[in-house]
Amino acid sequence: MKTNAGRFFEDYRLGETIAHAVPRTVSGGERALYHALYPARHALYSSDEFARACGLPAAPVDDLAAFHLVFGKTVPDISLNAVANLGYAEGRWLKPVFPGDTLRSESTVIGLKENSNGKSGVVYVRTRGLNQHGEAVLEYVRWVMVKKRDEAAPAPEATVPTLAKSVAAADLVVPAGLDFTRYDFTLAGEPHRWGDYAVGERIDHVDGVTIEEAEHMLATRLWQNTAKVHFDATNRPDGKRLIYGGHVISMARALSFNGLANAQMIVALNAGAHANPCFSGDTVRAWSEVLDRAETPAPGVGALRLRLVAVKHGTDPFALKGEDGKYNPGVLLDLDYWALVPR
Amino acid sequence: MKTNAGRFFEDYRLGETIAHAVPRTVSGGERALYHALYPARHALYSSDEFARACGLPAAPVDDLAAFHLVFGKTVPDISLNAVANLGYAEGRWLKPVFPGDTLRSESTVIGLKENSNGKSGVVYVRTRGLNQHGEAVLEYVRWVMVKKRDEAAPAPEATVPTLAKSVAAADLVVPAGLDFTRYDFTLAGEPHRWGDYAVGERIDHVDGVTIEEAEHMLATRLWQNTAKVHFDATNRPDGKRLIYGGHVISMARALSFNGLANAQMIVALNAGAHANPCFSGDTVRAWSEVLDRAETPAPGVGALRLRLVAVKHGTDPFALKGEDGKYNPGVLLDLDYWALVPR
Amino acid sequence: MKTNAGRFFEDYRLGETIAHAVPRTVSGGERALYHALYPARHALYSSDEFARACGLPAAPVDDLAAFHLVFGKTVPDISLNAVANLGYAEGRWLKPVFPGDTLRSESTVIGLKENSNGKSGVVYVRTRGLNQHGEAVLEYVRWVMVKKRDEAAPAPEATVPTLAKSVAAADLVVPAGLDFTRYDFTLAGEPHRWGDYAVGERIDHVDGVTIEEAEHMLATRLWQNTAKVHFDATNRPDGKRLIYGGHVISMARALSFNGLANAQMIVALNAGAHANPCFSGDTVRAWSEVLDRAETPAPGVGALRLRLVAVKHGTDPFALKGEDGKYNPGVLLDLDYWALVPR
Repeated sequence: MKTNAGRFFEDYRLGETIAHAVPRTVSGGERALYHALYPARHALYSSDEFARACGLPAAPVDDLAAFHLVFGKTVPDISLNAVANLGYAEGRWLKPVFPGDTLRSESTVIGLKENSNGKSGVVYVRTRGLNQHGEAVLEYVRWVMVKKRDEAAPAPEATVPTLAKSVAAADLVVPAGLDFTRYDFTLAGEPHRWGDYAVGERIDHVDGVTIEEAEHMLATRLWQNTAKVHFDATNRPDGKRLIYGGHVISMARALSFNGLANAQMIVALNAGAHANPCFSGDTVRAWSEVLDRAETPAPGVGALRLRLVAVKHGTDPFALKGEDGKYNPGVLLDLDYWALVPR
Repeated sequence: MKTNAGRFFEDYRLGETIAHAVPRTVSGGERALYHALYPARHALYSSDEFARACGLPAAPVDDLAAFHLVFGKTVPDISLNAVANLGYAEGRWLKPVFPGDTLRSESTVIGLKENSNGKSGVVYVRTRGLNQHGEAVLEYVRWVMVKKRDEAAPAPEATVPTLAKSVAAADLVVPAGLDFTRYDFTLAGEPHRWGDYAVGERIDHVDGVTIEEAEHMLATRLWQNTAKVHFDATNRPDGKRLIYGGHVISMARALSFNGLANAQMIVALNAGAHANPCFSGDTVRAWSEVLDRAETPAPGVGALRLRLVAVKHGTDPFALKGEDGKYNPGVLLDLDYWALVPR
Repeated sequence: MKTNAGRFFEDYRLGETIAHAVPRTVSGGERALYHALYPARHALYSSDEFARACGLPAAPVDDLAAFHLVFGKTVPDISLNAVANLGYAEGRWLKPVFPGDTLRSESTVIGLKENSNGKSGVVYVRTRGLNQHGEAVLEYVRWVMVKKRDEAAPAPEATVPTLAKSVAAADLVVPAGLDFTRYDFTLAGEPHRWGDYAVGERIDHVDGVTIEEAEHMLATRLWQNTAKVHFDATNRPDGKRLIYGGHVISMARALSFNGLANAQMIVALNAGAHANPCFSGDTVRAWSEVLDRAETPAPGVGALRLRLVAVKHGTDPFALKGEDGKYNPGVLLDLDYWALVPR
């Protein structure tokens, strides 16, 4: 067999590092496609001039595009036989990605725990995205439930890593040179500064986008994510394709421009849940909540910890969970991240 | 409220200039996407070599892509609460846009007139697209009907600008260096010169394109046009999304290659009506009529004033208006523009 | 009539060379779109760094993208009135195409044979793709059945060219500088070398992709292929658009990564049949068979002759033909090509 059937739970070894295949050079093409796929308008990622005025050499590729590219490479090794994507933690963007950069990924297995049913187990990996200079541009922990090939295979000793509930403000990495002291709020689209956001404040991002099959497949392929559930209509009786969770993240983040136009750079992913599957025809809406605020050493740069929630149109957007503690069916995404905002 | 609810009629002041947000750097990515979204084949925009042989430094971004980018930025300030896009006038392309350029837009309010029902009014703006050097690349007048927030708000004194029926030939701006004396008609695809087109001549562009939801949404997002009617299927009982009028303009212009392959550069927009809404599933066809001809001072360069009409398949393409003077339901677009053609 | 109605059978002259219109400059935009349209993961085309480690100056545009661009330009002159695309032969890639290159095409008529019904005839052309330096990047023979405009038009003397069953290994052109001696199998995604593939071996590529109308139209337009059957739903009673055969080639080739990740560069097209039409909603699957193996003079570089078959989901993928020798309805593509593989 020359084809890759993917790894099963018993194929992972604690501490091993897996180098993921297919490095990728990004260009203005990926940037243009990101703008075609999502209603992305954050000025720092749209305009080289705006980015230069903020101390960067050019407009980076969207932070989530970098995330999707790094993530996509891990799919054949980590989640081809995954039953569920359980969570994210300790995600940090370490360096902006610019057109011309070449990205590759590697993942270290930091935890393994077989499920009590003996049919699957949870695999924890810390993934790093690296550029052509070998510099880390991004890192995050992700854990997935993976099937066993052979239920009789012996279980490894259970090891569950201790993960931070959120990235500490002191650990946020502000890109070298970033300076918001001459930030142009008019060009950015909104007047709200870091100090204008209060912890606990909620922002309804108003707009909705109805998703088509062609769009989410274009996006998911762009990141070279090949999980068949996203592409093959014969996988399900209703002929629908499961939309890549990252597509919902990018859609919700782009919608959040309306109210958070100045939350320019994503620097940390604290936690995230793909609460329910999203399908073609769903109309995605989003709201955010300010969870925390922090200063940074960079001139004029503050940080906001934000909760980004995506819901399907037709459900109460703010009724997140039922009495059983489970997400309501209309909730698609519950994401917790840090963004850099002018002070 | 941190989100932008858009301006209402009473929010505009005569003479004020609004700087629109979110500048945008274009690259080969936008050019490639334009070719994927429209059957665009004008050689000057397809080939750097062809453009250089015509005296330009490289192939510009399609003139309509430049228009859509400039227009898209105005939507949050001008037409978020618009009931109707009423017209265009005095549009001129002033400088070609090349990959690497960064575009922003600003609009000056040049007219205001409340409707007699007191519920809305007409806003006239002159919009300019500017590049990173602050040079104007494009300007046009557009007027839209905008709702009032408060029907009791006092009406401003009515001011309706006097607008030219069409841009005078003497006011057309030919790009610096443009020279069609060594124009390669074989590479361009058709032998017809400026002198081969007679005023009154009609050209049926033959081909039709059936539009899909995913396509027009990709296009409209690419221009960062965020009007919700284009994206949110829950806005209408039939679940259809209204197609951005500019998508129809670009589709019709691209179809017009067949018969007008040498009408290379658009230099003026004299007038335009989005006669009826276009929806997914419609098959767009187009025809053109030669309205006028003019010489230009540039070597080998003539100008044709063209009427470009787009219709839905299944209707008489040449029956534009009924006895009541209104456009027939199958008519989508009636556009009047000047293009540069080799003599 | 200023529009192009295309050539009919009696318009072709043996030996004439047709220069096709609309040259095209490619950029990172076309490369990004190729990755969005197809699950393409061959590392040499994804990463500039990987390509440099293999002796090339940068990652080329996918060989099939180059093919589609060259092919697309021939459509208005060769196949606008074609009833059927009958075959390919003697295809060779002669030089990689890089972002910044400008491609044009020309075709020489090498054979003409009227059908016995007097209504149509077969036209054989040898097409060359040329870059901005006038260097051939690609050549292939294609023959199509073309309608006659006038059934009474006299038939030319029948001339059928003698075509090689396959390109001889000695005639394969290995790109200058290509060196696989330091090939990184981990980054490429699979460990299988040239020597691991046996003649007669079959590889089932496992994955399937369900095709949407928007996707194949974006792809086909990207190559400036304007054949109306791909775009105009009013051409058929069922409203479906015939999918460009090249879309199926690219989809199948991209799927073949799974098992043939190291079959990096396509250097020859020996033969190809679009066995049955493909439509939106079809789920495409693919398998390959190793037909031949050859050494090359380049360091570490071997060649595999591969048969690539694409089938619709729901049919027996390996039952290619019925007892009548005709392809079964579920077979979409039967392609025969040479690829370069590390030894």
